[in-house]
Amino acid sequence: MANDPEQAMTGAEALVSTLADHGVAACFANPGTSEMHLVTALDHEPRIHSVLCLFEGVATGAADGYARVSGGPAMTLLHLGAGYLNGGANIHNARRAWTPMVNVIGDHAVPHQRYDAPLASDIRGMAGPNSVWIKSADKAETAGELAAEAWEASLSPVPGPAALILPADTAWLEGGKSGKTRARPMLWGPDAARIDAAVKAVKAAAKPMILINGTALTEAGLAMAARLKAAGVRVMTDTFFPRQARGAGRFIPDRMQYFAEAAMADLEGCDLMLVAGSQVPVAFFAYPGKPSVLVPDGCTTMMLGGPESDSAAILGALADALGARDAAPAAPLDLPGAPAGDLNAVAVGQSIARHMPEGTFVSDDGVSNGLPAFLMTQRAKPHDWMMLTGGAIGQGMPLALGAAMAAKDRKVLCLTGDGAAMYTNQALWSMARESANVVTVVFVNHSYRILNIEMARTGAGNPGPTAKGMLELDRPEIDWVALSTSLGVPAVAVDTAEAFDTALQRAFAAEGPQLIAAHVPAR
Amino acid sequence: MANDPEQAMTGAEALVSTLADHGVAACFANPGTSEMHLVTALDHEPRIHSVLCLFEGVATGAADGYARVSGGPAMTLLHLGAGYLNGGANIHNARRAWTPMVNVIGDHAVPHQRYDAPLASDIRGMAGPNSVWIKSADKAETAGELAAEAWEASLSPVPGPAALILPADTAWLEGGKSGKTRARPMLWGPDAARIDAAVKAVKAAAKPMILINGTALTEAGLAMAARLKAAGVRVMTDTFFPRQARGAGRFIPDRMQYFAEAAMADLEGCDLMLVAGSQVPVAFFAYPGKPSVLVPDGCTTMMLGGPESDSAAILGALADALGARDAAPAAPLDLPGAPAGDLNAVAVGQSIARHMPEGTFVSDDGVSNGLPAFLMTQRAKPHDWMMLTGGAIGQGMPLALGAAMAAKDRKVLCLTGDGAAMYTNQALWSMARESANVVTVVFVNHSYRILNIEMARTGAGNPGPTAKGMLELDRPEIDWVALSTSLGVPAVAVDTAEAFDTALQRAFAAEGPQLIAAHVPAR
Repeated sequence: MANDPEQAMTGAEALVSTLADHGVAACFANPGTSEMHLVTALDHEPRIHSVLCLFEGVATGAADGYARVSGGPAMTLLHLGAGYLNGGANIHNARRAWTPMVNVIGDHAVPHQRYDAPLASDIRGMAGPNSVWIKSADKAETAGELAAEAWEASLSPVPGPAALILPADTAWLEGGKSGKTRARPMLWGPDAARIDAAVKAVKAAAKPMILINGTALTEAGLAMAARLKAAGVRVMTDTFFPRQARGAGRFIPDRMQYFAEAAMADLEGCDLMLVAGSQVPVAFFAYPGKPSVLVPDGCTTMMLGGPESDSAAILGALADALGARDAAPAAPLDLPGAPAGDLNAVAVGQSIARHMPEGTFVSDDGVSNGLPAFLMTQRAKPHDWMMLTGGAIGQGMPLALGAAMAAKDRKVLCLTGDGAAMYTNQALWSMARESANVVTVVFVNHSYRILNIEMARTGAGNPGPTAKGMLELDRPEIDWVALSTSLGVPAVAVDTAEAFDTALQRAFAAEGPQLIAAHVPAR
Repeated sequence: MANDPEQAMTGAEALVSTLADHGVAACFANPGTSEMHLVTALDHEPRIHSVLCLFEGVATGAADGYARVSGGPAMTLLHLGAGYLNGGANIHNARRAWTPMVNVIGDHAVPHQRYDAPLASDIRGMAGPNSVWIKSADKAETAGELAAEAWEASLSPVPGPAALILPADTAWLEGGKSGKTRARPMLWGPDAARIDAAVKAVKAAAKPMILINGTALTEAGLAMAARLKAAGVRVMTDTFFPRQARGAGRFIPDRMQYFAEAAMADLEGCDLMLVAGSQVPVAFFAYPGKPSVLVPDGCTTMMLGGPESDSAAILGALADALGARDAAPAAPLDLPGAPAGDLNAVAVGQSIARHMPEGTFVSDDGVSNGLPAFLMTQRAKPHDWMMLTGGAIGQGMPLALGAAMAAKDRKVLCLTGDGAAMYTNQALWSMARESANVVTVVFVNHSYRILNIEMARTGAGNPGPTAKGMLELDRPEIDWVALSTSLGVPAVAVDTAEAFDTALQRAFAAEGPQLIAAHVPAR
């Protein structure tokens, strides 16, 4: 194609068409002057749907959600180092979810870079730490090949965000060539020697368990996990995971507790911890006098495979080697009745379990209010749950936007705290623009409630007026209905369980984005 | 103090009290679990006023505005690497304004750092490029001294954002000691040899000019500039500058044009370019076939001092050495009449010139609509104009918030594009919370209008439907009145010059924040 003079390409065109050749079908973008030729190239590439985001943190969070649903990377378009920084927190989160992503970061034209223009910055330095791969395409001739390399690197050996820097002159000059098409890299399969060792260890252990993440949390992976459970191995997921198949027909694994002391109590007596598709568990934060590593004294850890591995296949191989023929029972369909009374997180969870359609993708950035909904939907209709893995709040609505773009025939349910939602409220506008089928539930408690809990747990003392002022969002109270409708998303506020139940049912029945401001008490 | 057993301090308390000892009086914060002890320490420090921001980009932009008005650094409180990233774009802008700032970035407890917990990241790697100084206080004993060092580094040798990383255990452990109090560093004064050389060069030049920024743009500096002008030296400011004294009684310098070709035409024939408080001028972006360095062929450049220098003093020394006794005239007070008809940027500028109270600080993130207001206020009442220096839009409202916190007896006028304002709309909430005297004018054209201009200038071709979709904000149209009021700021939308004039007069007369959605045509 590049050798055909009638098909002369710019570097930008080579980059875009090469990504499209690899199946990239979505670009979440906020362009600037240095990306104008990339924008034009996207104009000429019908295989990629471009979604404008009014803040780069929406773009990167959406690319994460898109990849979690579709399995392959989306492209983002970011405006130089400043655009990268704006998108950086959700790239951090994506790295912690092992999400493939190709971040295309515009830069000044190569001859202009030496002059330290106002928007110049050390993009490699800033973007490197949260990228699995980073290169700059400094010539039009290299843009296509580096795009293919970035795509491949985003998937292997450890999936994550790749960063491809595109100087403006590379974008505008002709001489672009398509990159060589790569086959999709496979995750690593089970290692026979490790499986053998694990079988021996399980047989010798009094209380063995396996900590799982990755493909082990797919429907197929959980079927393998159910066999391990029947063979006497406790199955536990990480506290936070990119995606888990749940609901009727799926095995219900345990989940690692969030607070370190609760996790350690739950793990008491465990003398073998196998790990598949994850890492040895550590506490989210350190607290004075509390453990960092969540492994009991005397417990042996055995890594069967990290995030580079196909943990579902590992579970299958282990179940086979253990001779585990039976499987622990899967969840029955069991929908609760209608909630009544004051609205709280439990009532919200009850309504969700009742009304959530089959196949829903849940984006959970609910912070202190997400857990009840998680627990109450274990026996709901089959669905997938996606979590905030990196701890940087403000992921929920962007992730939901991206998920909706990847699964247009499904519903997406976004659960978000009000503090979290404020970080990236611009996502609502893109949901409206794209008629994304997202039902957003904002837990409105006018508070960083989790910090009120953590203030006590860290032993930082009772908050005085200044501290209270940094934990409460009550002056002024945000009007979520007005905020949402101002950005084009119909919204309703509710403060009783009955009203929430009705609102949720209506929102799921509607087309396009909907928001429910669920007023729940802060304490 | 640290040796007094009754005054045992934590590391967090030592950090906070040391900054207060150095005159830091404001903290713009978004804390998380790892910063709980910092929050408690702020509770005990009455000299620092803490302002909660619902997104870190608001906090860092506000710290920039605070410093531009007060002259000294404010403190920010950011939650680990993710919080830094969220605040990063406005830190980039602050670096490009040479704004002193002390960014305190919480981190995991030192013993926890090796475990790569979900929120862990390479803070030094990410924050280093846009910091003039970066260190981690890994022991309680060092927190106070490093706070003093950070404060000093933010002011000297080149002012800018300093980054002090504070691990959670440093914050919570006792053993904190006050840092040694530093004297405020002085900017560099004029260099006699360079002044002599400049005098000779000016006398030999046919069309000499001086490019100024920094203290040369204060009222005192401009009085010196007026003497140079009378002595035959053209005086020109950078296109974008942190702050300029303007209006009646102040000399009006020329301003470097934004577009490279316009700048070069304006500079034609110039054979000597002196530089004081700035750098040799370069184009904001590169364009195919256009120059990067904005200096005509055959023009000699002479650096009299960069951003590390007191450019006002340099101008004074040069004027003395040139024997410049007279001064070019200052601007007279000349207020325009009321505008009429359709609303556009010129009518907005006319109203601003009419109604802006003496002493107003203007925060200009108006992108394609800011210039008319800038030009039309040259003969308005005395005021100060603050610009976006780093090109990362979304600075206007945060900067205005910070300016208002530093000058409670003044009015602040924020000019912002709608695209820019969406980046950091959370600033409105903090304005409401703090009853900040900010009048925000949002230029609503439902478009990234500057990019429509740039699309043509970069030769990227006529935008097709995909490209148009990335330049227009028209589906859905954002309701700025609803958005603003949802966050607690009273707002009104206007689309005629008469209505804007009335709304602006009322907004300046009101107490607390006000927003005007000024609907201006996109073309």
